[in-house]
Amino acid sequence: MIAEGFRLEVVARDGDARTGRLTTPHGVVETPAFMPVATYGAVRGISAEDLRTIGAQICLANTYHLHERPGEGVIAGLGGLHGFTDWRGPWLTDSGGYQVTSLADRMQLEEAGVTFASPLDGKRRMLTPEGVIAIQEALGSDIAMVLDECLAPHPPAGEPSADSPAVRAAMERTLRWAERSRAARKRPDQAVFGIVQGGVSHDLRRHSAGETAAIGFDGYAHGGLGLGESRAQRSEAVVVAHAELPGEAPRYLMGLGRPVDLVDGVACGVDLFDCVVPTRNGRHGLLFTSQGIISIKNARHRDDGEPVDPECDCPACTHHSRAYLRHLIKCGESLGSRLAALHNLRFYLRLLERTREAILNGTFAALRSEVEAIGEKRLA
Amino acid sequence: MIAEGFRLEVVARDGDARTGRLTTPHGVVETPAFMPVATYGAVRGISAEDLRTIGAQICLANTYHLHERPGEGVIAGLGGLHGFTDWRGPWLTDSGGYQVTSLADRMQLEEAGVTFASPLDGKRRMLTPEGVIAIQEALGSDIAMVLDECLAPHPPAGEPSADSPAVRAAMERTLRWAERSRAARKRPDQAVFGIVQGGVSHDLRRHSAGETAAIGFDGYAHGGLGLGESRAQRSEAVVVAHAELPGEAPRYLMGLGRPVDLVDGVACGVDLFDCVVPTRNGRHGLLFTSQGIISIKNARHRDDGEPVDPECDCPACTHHSRAYLRHLIKCGESLGSRLAALHNLRFYLRLLERTREAILNGTFAALRSEVEAIGEKRLA
Repeated sequence: MIAEGFRLEVVARDGDARTGRLTTPHGVVETPAFMPVATYGAVRGISAEDLRTIGAQICLANTYHLHERPGEGVIAGLGGLHGFTDWRGPWLTDSGGYQVTSLADRMQLEEAGVTFASPLDGKRRMLTPEGVIAIQEALGSDIAMVLDECLAPHPPAGEPSADSPAVRAAMERTLRWAERSRAARKRPDQAVFGIVQGGVSHDLRRHSAGETAAIGFDGYAHGGLGLGESRAQRSEAVVVAHAELPGEAPRYLMGLGRPVDLVDGVACGVDLFDCVVPTRNGRHGLLFTSQGIISIKNARHRDDGEPVDPECDCPACTHHSRAYLRHLIKCGESLGSRLAALHNLRFYLRLLERTREAILNGTFAALRSEVEAIGEKRLA
Repeated sequence: MIAEGFRLEVVARDGDARTGRLTTPHGVVETPAFMPVATYGAVRGISAEDLRTIGAQICLANTYHLHERPGEGVIAGLGGLHGFTDWRGPWLTDSGGYQVTSLADRMQLEEAGVTFASPLDGKRRMLTPEGVIAIQEALGSDIAMVLDECLAPHPPAGEPSADSPAVRAAMERTLRWAERSRAARKRPDQAVFGIVQGGVSHDLRRHSAGETAAIGFDGYAHGGLGLGESRAQRSEAVVVAHAELPGEAPRYLMGLGRPVDLVDGVACGVDLFDCVVPTRNGRHGLLFTSQGIISIKNARHRDDGEPVDPECDCPACTHHSRAYLRHLIKCGESLGSRLAALHNLRFYLRLLERTREAILNGTFAALRSEVEAIGEKRLA
């Protein structure tokens, strides 16, 4: 089943990297794309107008958080996420699986679903595969995610427990939940993505991908990564899964990550990314630049009248100095967090713009090398 | 002494209310004017671009806070407040007197100045009349304020202590400090305002105003009000002072207040206002509307798709519903505080726009009655 008005057109390839246009009911997304995280329907301090200014094309909201507050009924009554918020472009909603299963001792996993004590009011709530689809249909996102079972961080590379019974069981439950999710969907205009699990085991990832593809979704995500595995392990897990997934379907690497993680994913043929790193690092004063990462709180920036990154066209870099940004963040002024988050998001969005250009021009390998060389360099 | 490039041209009067154009080195301010408070050189979460959008013409920064962080030297080195921040229009800086003398048990008042333990690092610092002028000259504001001695809230109306030795002594010290401030100023392009003190005593206010005017400043402020006195007491204190002040100099009612306090001040001939009420109330979800004040956290707004105020042209009202704003503020999303503050600031700026129009049209009394009738009405 392919949702109405949902289609990925691959325009160019460079190795396994690919660039294209993902058509959704609320607009076209150029891929590979990065999705800013708007947990409660807003990115920390940043308006939809700001997001448009820095070139965002699609945003991600958290199903679980919106289910708690204000509730999907409120949002549905006001026209879904597109009417409730001022972001009229495409929305992807996650399934809440990651949030809920990370509650650890406060949740109980059963075949029916996940029961947990709400961190908000302590009351017991249950998320089921069918319920999570229904919530997302009420939210009206362009792309919904199935409920999956996430496990705790992986054991160190190479240990036999990479293919442990727990990892296998979570992968298999995720498959059974995927079937129920597939059966539960009712909206013809909403894409639903299946989620591949299986830790870092090639066999499990391969099996999970093949079976998820057999159930049939509009797109596929890699879940349970970014939890301690090495870059190589992660890329292998992605690559073996891609071999089992239909090439015309979009692929989404969930929750990752650093710039180098994004180019790693692109190199494996991933189309969609999301991560809280740019906004969270921004709040802490860690800013991505074309030369590496700077800690704006550092005293060396106290009198610095230069922008954070002279190559950046974001509102922070075009209007403000490092000294001003440092001052605001040191004083806890919320404009500081906002400008820092805007800058980092623009860095990510620009990185994806450059990635798309590089794939078109057949120069992605050079861009990837550049990101590997400076992406994580700490300047000061 | 009149600072270069600084001039108030009164364009029209309606009773004692007056409207005009205050020319400063960084632009013209239409009076009466409201100044958003940018404590550390930024209004909570709001950019200079945002401030321009909602029609702000002049901003206020806190000398004491900027002296602590980042220090006036940093700001001077980057071109003063106009270069350090993105607000290129007129700046007024307060003197820090109110902040420091409100430290109560942590400060020591002597003839030389105020010594206090910094809330930031516990170290002892001293603010003197001369020092405060020097700091503001380094900050490069268009309007500087003299250091004054503020007293605690007034005793209830009518008690003899309204003319108590403490109130008289603080007023007299403020006069001596005003002379020293006048002698200390060096920048020909920065206006300096004297501050009238004297509690709610007519005699003391009259004396303070006359003596401050005799020293000679570019403008005059009413200090030590908004501390518990009645509306009538405050208006009387302002009126008796105005009789002693030169009519061509701008008059500034410091730190006030509610909409009704603004129209009260305008009725007495005040030209400038500042207050944290719009931004602070916004953070707490109290929003000013043309019908009264609403508490956006109230459950009745949960599903409300209407804007906060259909008559308002602010970014919150033109792009968002009450339901969305309520949701953001309930969730502690910083976009909520930002939008609420923007809305309330726009309400204040619009109120002053309407005030200026009303004075031009000779209809200020009607506007004042309207504000008195609905200004403080709590809707829900």
